[in-house]
Amino acid sequence: MTGSPAGREVPPGDPGALLAPGRADSPASSATSDSAVLQALLDAEAALTRAWVDRGAVPAAAAAAVSAVRADDLDARAVARAARDGGNPVIPLVARLTAAVGAEHGPYVHRGATSQDILDSALMLVARRTRDLTVADLERAATALGRLAATHRDTVLPGRTLTQHAVPTTFGLKAAGWRSLLLDARDRLAGVRLPAQLGGAAGTLAALTAFGAEDPQALVAAYAHELGLAEPALPWHTLRTPVADLAGALAFTAGALGKMAADVLTLSRTEIAELAEGSGGGSSAMPHKTNPVAATLIAAAARRAPGLAATLYASMVAEDERPAGAWHAEWEPLRDLLRLAGGAAEQGVDLAEGLRVNADAMREHLGLTHGLIVSERLAVELAPVLGRARAKDLLTAAARRAVTEGRPLVEVLGEEPDLKDLDLADLTDPTRYTGSAGALTDRALERR
Amino acid sequence: MTGSPAGREVPPGDPGALLAPGRADSPASSATSDSAVLQALLDAEAALTRAWVDRGAVPAAAAAAVSAVRADDLDARAVARAARDGGNPVIPLVARLTAAVGAEHGPYVHRGATSQDILDSALMLVARRTRDLTVADLERAATALGRLAATHRDTVLPGRTLTQHAVPTTFGLKAAGWRSLLLDARDRLAGVRLPAQLGGAAGTLAALTAFGAEDPQALVAAYAHELGLAEPALPWHTLRTPVADLAGALAFTAGALGKMAADVLTLSRTEIAELAEGSGGGSSAMPHKTNPVAATLIAAAARRAPGLAATLYASMVAEDERPAGAWHAEWEPLRDLLRLAGGAAEQGVDLAEGLRVNADAMREHLGLTHGLIVSERLAVELAPVLGRARAKDLLTAAARRAVTEGRPLVEVLGEEPDLKDLDLADLTDPTRYTGSAGALTDRALERR
Amino acid sequence: MTGSPAGREVPPGDPGALLAPGRADSPASSATSDSAVLQALLDAEAALTRAWVDRGAVPAAAAAAVSAVRADDLDARAVARAARDGGNPVIPLVARLTAAVGAEHGPYVHRGATSQDILDSALMLVARRTRDLTVADLERAATALGRLAATHRDTVLPGRTLTQHAVPTTFGLKAAGWRSLLLDARDRLAGVRLPAQLGGAAGTLAALTAFGAEDPQALVAAYAHELGLAEPALPWHTLRTPVADLAGALAFTAGALGKMAADVLTLSRTEIAELAEGSGGGSSAMPHKTNPVAATLIAAAARRAPGLAATLYASMVAEDERPAGAWHAEWEPLRDLLRLAGGAAEQGVDLAEGLRVNADAMREHLGLTHGLIVSERLAVELAPVLGRARAKDLLTAAARRAVTEGRPLVEVLGEEPDLKDLDLADLTDPTRYTGSAGALTDRALERR
Amino acid sequence: MTGSPAGREVPPGDPGALLAPGRADSPASSATSDSAVLQALLDAEAALTRAWVDRGAVPAAAAAAVSAVRADDLDARAVARAARDGGNPVIPLVARLTAAVGAEHGPYVHRGATSQDILDSALMLVARRTRDLTVADLERAATALGRLAATHRDTVLPGRTLTQHAVPTTFGLKAAGWRSLLLDARDRLAGVRLPAQLGGAAGTLAALTAFGAEDPQALVAAYAHELGLAEPALPWHTLRTPVADLAGALAFTAGALGKMAADVLTLSRTEIAELAEGSGGGSSAMPHKTNPVAATLIAAAARRAPGLAATLYASMVAEDERPAGAWHAEWEPLRDLLRLAGGAAEQGVDLAEGLRVNADAMREHLGLTHGLIVSERLAVELAPVLGRARAKDLLTAAARRAVTEGRPLVEVLGEEPDLKDLDLADLTDPTRYTGSAGALTDRALERR
Repeated sequence: MTGSPAGREVPPGDPGALLAPGRADSPASSATSDSAVLQALLDAEAALTRAWVDRGAVPAAAAAAVSAVRADDLDARAVARAARDGGNPVIPLVARLTAAVGAEHGPYVHRGATSQDILDSALMLVARRTRDLTVADLERAATALGRLAATHRDTVLPGRTLTQHAVPTTFGLKAAGWRSLLLDARDRLAGVRLPAQLGGAAGTLAALTAFGAEDPQALVAAYAHELGLAEPALPWHTLRTPVADLAGALAFTAGALGKMAADVLTLSRTEIAELAEGSGGGSSAMPHKTNPVAATLIAAAARRAPGLAATLYASMVAEDERPAGAWHAEWEPLRDLLRLAGGAAEQGVDLAEGLRVNADAMREHLGLTHGLIVSERLAVELAPVLGRARAKDLLTAAARRAVTEGRPLVEVLGEEPDLKDLDLADLTDPTRYTGSAGALTDRALERR
Repeated sequence: MTGSPAGREVPPGDPGALLAPGRADSPASSATSDSAVLQALLDAEAALTRAWVDRGAVPAAAAAAVSAVRADDLDARAVARAARDGGNPVIPLVARLTAAVGAEHGPYVHRGATSQDILDSALMLVARRTRDLTVADLERAATALGRLAATHRDTVLPGRTLTQHAVPTTFGLKAAGWRSLLLDARDRLAGVRLPAQLGGAAGTLAALTAFGAEDPQALVAAYAHELGLAEPALPWHTLRTPVADLAGALAFTAGALGKMAADVLTLSRTEIAELAEGSGGGSSAMPHKTNPVAATLIAAAARRAPGLAATLYASMVAEDERPAGAWHAEWEPLRDLLRLAGGAAEQGVDLAEGLRVNADAMREHLGLTHGLIVSERLAVELAPVLGRARAKDLLTAAARRAVTEGRPLVEVLGEEPDLKDLDLADLTDPTRYTGSAGALTDRALERR
Repeated sequence: MTGSPAGREVPPGDPGALLAPGRADSPASSATSDSAVLQALLDAEAALTRAWVDRGAVPAAAAAAVSAVRADDLDARAVARAARDGGNPVIPLVARLTAAVGAEHGPYVHRGATSQDILDSALMLVARRTRDLTVADLERAATALGRLAATHRDTVLPGRTLTQHAVPTTFGLKAAGWRSLLLDARDRLAGVRLPAQLGGAAGTLAALTAFGAEDPQALVAAYAHELGLAEPALPWHTLRTPVADLAGALAFTAGALGKMAADVLTLSRTEIAELAEGSGGGSSAMPHKTNPVAATLIAAAARRAPGLAATLYASMVAEDERPAGAWHAEWEPLRDLLRLAGGAAEQGVDLAEGLRVNADAMREHLGLTHGLIVSERLAVELAPVLGRARAKDLLTAAARRAVTEGRPLVEVLGEEPDLKDLDLADLTDPTRYTGSAGALTDRALERR
Repeated sequence: MTGSPAGREVPPGDPGALLAPGRADSPASSATSDSAVLQALLDAEAALTRAWVDRGAVPAAAAAAVSAVRADDLDARAVARAARDGGNPVIPLVARLTAAVGAEHGPYVHRGATSQDILDSALMLVARRTRDLTVADLERAATALGRLAATHRDTVLPGRTLTQHAVPTTFGLKAAGWRSLLLDARDRLAGVRLPAQLGGAAGTLAALTAFGAEDPQALVAAYAHELGLAEPALPWHTLRTPVADLAGALAFTAGALGKMAADVLTLSRTEIAELAEGSGGGSSAMPHKTNPVAATLIAAAARRAPGLAATLYASMVAEDERPAGAWHAEWEPLRDLLRLAGGAAEQGVDLAEGLRVNADAMREHLGLTHGLIVSERLAVELAPVLGRARAKDLLTAAARRAVTEGRPLVEVLGEEPDLKDLDLADLTDPTRYTGSAGALTDRALERR
């Protein structure tokens, strides 16, 4: 009778994704399709009847009959159309489900529940299934980034701030940073508590009692158990903690992936070319182009997620025992967020696993500022030798000459008699000025 | 050869709307479906080949062949899947279209265009079609509201501020206000200029010249004319004025409808019941309920639109000649906004045309504050009689007695000897304190 | 030398709050004022020099001199003006601080740090101080709500869904629900990890080493300890987990308070009047009005928080080692969110502690639907007696008569011979149909 | 007595801008400061009394007394604090203003108005003043960009799409595009209709009549005229068209400037260096850096504006005759948007007027892809010579060789016997493949 439906096959496919290349054909897209939502609604109804069976109030045969109805047996589009009348798809679904199981079992359908019980539970089911896919993809991407960070622990490239070369850093530290963000996203996403919903018309469980449940809260617990969802402390029809938590964790996930994508996009620029996607995308007009498509699609997802999360946070302000609008405004944005984060995580795996690193280009770029990339170090090191003020003056003059004459700073400084006792080659070597980048990388990679 | 495709049948249907009762099965939903977008993409490709014909560079037969391919001939889901590789659906569409028209005509497909030319033009086509539906619905709803306002020009009800009765107003003024907002929305929406897009790879029209166009801008104009879209002043690949303007106008439309819905929701409350939707929705658990479903679904749309508009405004920040993410982030939010505003406008027609006004309840509620609803008037009128300070003291005391004793203010004041020369019945009659509500309503209804 | 500055007096006052009555003059407002931020910037610089002292590289006198400079010693507006040149206030602050401590100590100022180290650390300090205030206010409001819930455990009122009476519920359950949301907010807010920031120009700690730190990470730890902030795992210049976490927790807090405010606003309506704020606000035009001002201001905060949080989530997409814009876009929205949530929490205390409950009005409203509020129960209870179909028909007919004739349902049903064996008085008593409301309230109140 | 206050000196200064270098010390910041808002509130009160004078109901001396009170005479912070009680600053302002003018004139203060009349009018005044500054700055920046576009009409640089070189374009077209966006912003901003607000407690003008106005609408018109604001068609307490229109126009403005900034940031990168700000900003840690500070601060403003605009669009959903929260949620976001757009426009002037163009770097970068930047042209031109399929094959092979061997494409193609009759030097010259860039630039610059 039990057996969590969590592992059930989600119906494949995902219509409506023509404008969504970032998720089209992805597992997250299938897991959130109308078919998947319809199935989750049925799963919730089935779990409810099964939970009643153990309380003796519903015959096992009725629960079996309800559990046997599948999304494919119903016409999702007809349900969607009919949903307009009452404002949610559960009302027409219950009518069809009741008809489908026949007169004998029909009376046991939806016993004691309200539409929101079923729809909220179904969306939590969909959220859990999609979340699990996304968490797995975040792990996989993090693993690939861990490898990249270890491999390039000491690959030096220019650190860039406000678009300008600042001081050297390492690609290992960069990749380790991306990885740490993805792990933060994983932790937040995996940590969201996804409860079942069962409260009846106004969240008092009154109908459960009316239908004969001696211990309504035990019935709620059984229902949650059937669904593989957490047991709610209170009916949360208008206490939207789970939805808000999902909003935050999913926006975080999109943002975490978006940071990686932003760096890849920057470092893939034709002029920089320190990174390239494993398999970039083509162009309809320019045969030679290899576009960073995965990073682009992740970037697009990261641009969209915050606005959707904002809508969900705003829906916490849900008046009464069921609000007129705030609840309804959650459904599509929550699904969109699940899809965007899920699609972006999948693209993130491709990106991380396929990323090509051009260490030569990185090294070459360290010289682009003629050595000024280590000016911070020189300012520190020359002060004790020359005095602070004179060190600064000398350095400023040398920097100007290096740039205007197009010569390396080390060469200009070498002409300075006062500095002849210094190991200028070492002091001006960008690869010798990476500070704790290696140690920080090591430390970051210890995290699992 | 020509003949604007604007009037073409949009393929019906709208999968993926199970969580969108506010638009399921609506014309706006069909007009924005994947099928509709696919057809619009084909319309753009066809318009391009037809525009070339007049310049002599493409045989009429090729243009005819391209124009003959319909969305139904292609597999939208396969195109969507293939769109992942290049990051947009035009690349696989062009491949399929080229194959569909055969080797003879294939070389003339997509001549001189880039993916963005086709996709932007297609979305403007979709926007225009949906916009026209929405504008018509706004007009229709405004007409119904005009009738309501005229009918109830002098129907008095409590004006409410910060949830409390303030002074009387009329339902005519209220409905006239809703109407004026809808007309503002109509004007903004109808005023958005929707241009075709044609710039080639980087917006220079260079490929058009390479393919032999002597006057590329004339070709652009012809293409725009074929599509029934405005001629662009410049290619707008990264000058996103049309998208931003749509964002603003659509968010405005949702907000305008949302104001009406918010008032209907408030005045439909069980305790107030001054308004009721013509045909409210049922409940899966409570047989007696009649829910304000249209207002609820409009309210939900109004909650979602601002966040989507924000994403579109943010996409104005589009670097280079085609951005890596900002453009891609527009597609679904723009479609969602078109759907939400379009669906809400359709629901708005139902709401406005079916709204039932309970003038008795309105009148009755004017007495709920025991007459304090006219205290502003009394404060003004009594001052010359009693002196300002004494008038205020007397009024405060009388108000307190009216509330605590549960008696009408007129009765309490009647016991005051100093006021016996005043026509207290008139002064305390809420229906005599509606100021310019009637005149304002008349003036507002003059607007067409 | 050490001694956490956490407990320091925050400079009082808060200019610029004329349009912010929701936070004007609040502790959260003072804790986030320009003076407070300026002091926090100085606290960060001071902590840095003190951390260096223990490493032997900075004389204790220098650290003492730096620590002695107070925000009042500087001109915040001059710093703000000068911040335009470099794009952040730390550059001019360091110049002024260096001048203030004199030539002897000046060289030790800002040693090894970059502007972002100081500004991020300062904002985390400001966040911690404001967060602590907000958490305390959430606790206090929750305590008051706990009392309310216990007192009104069995006070019955109509449960409302989609604005309509549904089935009865209790005010105890409602207040317990608000409380549980506030406790969720408290947990999320208190759980945000607020780390110090110290990474140097590009997050490698290279300058710390150049300045002689043998163990740069130990220096970072000491700096964090000085500030009373968490030690960062990695420099987080472009790994914005703390800011995103704050965004989510603060938006959650505003939403949680907003739910309570929304219910108070609804139930304070003149027609409902089941609740009233302890001391409502007046009106400039209408002397009799008592407005639910605290709830209004909380509602306003809840409307603003999601958009600000969205901006912060979007800033996670921070390219390079310091982004050109994403970081700068965080400062004011983070402060605004801290203020809004903090102000709303303070108003929430007033609201919760002062709320007046009109149990008589609640009871009276249970009768507004002529008994239909228990129709769900009757549908369940009559089915075994009459058969499901006949029960439904009879109930529908009786409900119609009750409404149209304005009679209680119990009376109409009493005329039905088939029901004469039922205890109709009990079955139709709304106060006997509250299900598990009491038990759920008890359970919810066990949470601390 | 009359004389529009539009030209009045705005009190200087802008406390609270420590975290806002993008606007600190800017005219837009002064024009929106608390002092400026306080003065605008007084301007509205003064305009009201003056409008009454012409109707004979208020003595000229009273209007003069009210008009003589200045913001500096009042304590803005005390007003802000006192605003908490009633939820808006007008209530305490009226009390102070009444006291300030003395017992004789006091009774004429605020005659017939409600708080929202004064606050909305004041914010429209502030909006108009700031808008005018911003429009002027947009014009000025556009003028500078027009010069740049004309100067660099034929300066060729790589067109970039999805971060990769695509085909050549010109800097003239780029600058002309920025200019056209700024002019679009100017048109939208200048086109926003900013009406005065005057409706009385619930928007019926009833109090005006009670106070003796024979033609209340004429009084409204006079009031609007006094303020230099448009006359409202209806009181717009809950018909928020002006605020929504401002939201859209200001978000558009920030986005338009943000596009320019995004391009400047990209093209200022150390590796690209085709552009540089006239006077970049320094760094607290790295003496050699010249940061694109103006572009950075504009970018930050562009990131923040959409979320604020979303809050304002959401506030259109304003229930009743004055909403409990939606109105209050507008004040700070509207001010923030005015400041952000105004500050960004001012920075935009600096950016546009100071921008340094490195045409050599642009030309040099055209060669970075070894000639592939003209591959689109070659694909078109070679097809008639070689046949389409063979042309494609040959080009693909040549491209591969050019990249792998690091040779110019022209050289590789020159070895191909079949192409020896073509002018390959011309065909592969990127500066000869700019299409209509020049003509489009000319056309765009015709716009004023």
